[in-house]
Amino acid sequence: MPAQFAARIERTLEAAAARAETPDAPPKLAAAMRHALFPGGARVRPQLALAVAMACGDDCPELSDAAAASIELIHCASLVHDDLPMFDDADIRRGKPSVHKAFSQPIALLAGDAMIVAAFDVLAREGHFQPGRLAALVGTLARATGVPNGICAGQGWESEEHIELSAYHRAKTGALFRAATTMGALAAGAEPAPWRELGDRIGEAFQVADDLRDALMTSEELGKPVGQDEVHQRPNAVALLGVDGAVGKLKDILGGAVASIPDCPGKLVLTKIVEAQAARLVPAPFATSAA
Amino acid sequence: MPAQFAARIERTLEAAAARAETPDAPPKLAAAMRHALFPGGARVRPQLALAVAMACGDDCPELSDAAAASIELIHCASLVHDDLPMFDDADIRRGKPSVHKAFSQPIALLAGDAMIVAAFDVLAREGHFQPGRLAALVGTLARATGVPNGICAGQGWESEEHIELSAYHRAKTGALFRAATTMGALAAGAEPAPWRELGDRIGEAFQVADDLRDALMTSEELGKPVGQDEVHQRPNAVALLGVDGAVGKLKDILGGAVASIPDCPGKLVLTKIVEAQAARLVPAPFATSAA
Repeated sequence: MPAQFAARIERTLEAAAARAETPDAPPKLAAAMRHALFPGGARVRPQLALAVAMACGDDCPELSDAAAASIELIHCASLVHDDLPMFDDADIRRGKPSVHKAFSQPIALLAGDAMIVAAFDVLAREGHFQPGRLAALVGTLARATGVPNGICAGQGWESEEHIELSAYHRAKTGALFRAATTMGALAAGAEPAPWRELGDRIGEAFQVADDLRDALMTSEELGKPVGQDEVHQRPNAVALLGVDGAVGKLKDILGGAVASIPDCPGKLVLTKIVEAQAARLVPAPFATSAA
Repeated sequence: MPAQFAARIERTLEAAAARAETPDAPPKLAAAMRHALFPGGARVRPQLALAVAMACGDDCPELSDAAAASIELIHCASLVHDDLPMFDDADIRRGKPSVHKAFSQPIALLAGDAMIVAAFDVLAREGHFQPGRLAALVGTLARATGVPNGICAGQGWESEEHIELSAYHRAKTGALFRAATTMGALAAGAEPAPWRELGDRIGEAFQVADDLRDALMTSEELGKPVGQDEVHQRPNAVALLGVDGAVGKLKDILGGAVASIPDCPGKLVLTKIVEAQAARLVPAPFATSAA
C-alpha cells in the first residue's frame, strides 16, 4: 500500500484525536480516544477507501481523507466496545491493554461513543468542499455502522439464539469494507454502486482470513486473545470447512475481488494494490501452494 | 407546546425506529431501540428545536423534523448508556424497565450506539433538500455529542477526581439544548450564533430543575430513582444553594432565557412557548410564591 496513503490517514486521525484534547475535555476520556486510535493496526479499511478514491481521480483529497478516517474511527470504536467484558472480555488489543483495562469500563464505553461521533464530525468538517457529496457519505457511513445492516447489527446477532449467518457476516465484517469502497468512490465524485462488490468480497476475505488466524496463530503473534470464536461459539469458516477448505475459499474470494474492480481512471494501480493486500491475507504456510 | 410539534417529532422518530426493524436486523436489538424511544419523555429538546425552526420561518420542514429527531435520538441513546450498571445502574426509566433490564447489557450498549448513528442517518436522509445546510447540522450535532464539549465529555468528567464544574454542566446538560436552538435555526436557513444563549440558558435551567426534582420528588412521581446525585456524589445546585436558593436561581435563568430570544419572524409565538415551558420547570410549591 503506498506510503502516502498511510501518511494521509494518520494525519487526519491525529487531527481528530487532537480536537478532543482541549483544556475543556475530561483528560482520561481524551487520552482513551488516543489510546484506541494509536498506534493503529493495518488501517486496511481507510487504505482501501483512499485506494478507490485515487482510482476514481481523487479530485477532493480533503474529502477522501475524511471518508477514510471516518471509517477507521468507526472501526476503532467498535473494537473498544467489542473488547468490553460484556462482549469479548479482551484484555489486550494490538499488543497493549485494551481501553477498559488501561482506563475503565465507563471510559471505554464513552470513548467508543465519542469516536463514533468523531467519525461524523470529520465528514462534516470537510463536507463544505463538496456539499452535494456529503449526504451520501454521512448516510453510507451511518448505514454501515447502525441497524439493520451495519456493524452494530452484526454484533447484535450474537445476542440472538438463532443467527442469520449471511446477515451476520455481511453486517459484522462486510459493512465497513463496503463502506470503504463506496465512500472512496463517493468522496471522489464517482457512482458508488459499481464499487459494492469489491467491498463485499474483500470483507468476506477478511472474515475468512480472520477465522484462519484465530485458529492457527498464538496470542503473542496476534496481539490479542485467540480461540475466541470457539469460546463464544461464533460461526467460523475453519470450523465449517477445515483449514484447507477455508484457505481454498479465501483464494476464490480474493480472485473474485480483483475481477470485480470496475473500469476507472486508476484501475491498473488499484488492481496491483488489491493483489498485494490479497497476498498478505493468505496464511504463510499456504501462500504459494496451489495459489 | 403546539400539538403539531409532537406529531412531527413522533412521526420522524417512528420512521427511524421502523428502518431498524427489517427482516435483516437482529430482532432484540431493533426492539431495544424502539423500547428506548417510545413512549418518550417530554421531548423537550426536539420541541425546542422545532419551535426555533418555526420562529425562523421553517422553510424546509423535512430538515427541521430531521434536526429535531436527531437531537432526541442522541438524548435517548445517552439515557440508555447512562442507565447501565457501570454508570447510574438505573433499573427504571420513564416508569418502565431500563433497556439493559428489559433486554441485556450488550443489547443496551449496542442500542445506544445504533441510536447515535441513526441520529446522523436521519440528517443525511433529509440533507439533500438543502445540501448547503447539512455540514453545519451534522457538525453541530457531533460537537454537542462528542468530546471535548458534548454530552460524552460531560459524562466523562464523572470519571475524573477533579471535576471542572462549569465545563461539566455545559457539556452534560447544556450541549444538547444549545444544539436544539442552533440546529433549529440552521435547519431553517438562519444564522445559528444568535440562538446559542437561549439554548445555554434553557439547558442551565433544566439542570437546576433536575437537581430540584432529584431532591424533592419520590421515585414513583419521577419514574426513575431519586437521590442519585447524592449517591454518586455529583455536583448539585440544591446541595450548593439550598432549595430556596436553587428555586431563585432557576427563576433568574428562565427570565434571562426569555430575554435572550433574538429578533425573528416568529418571536412572539416562540416567547410564549418558552414562557410556558419555563412555568412547568419551577416545582409546584414554588411556582407562585415570589415569582
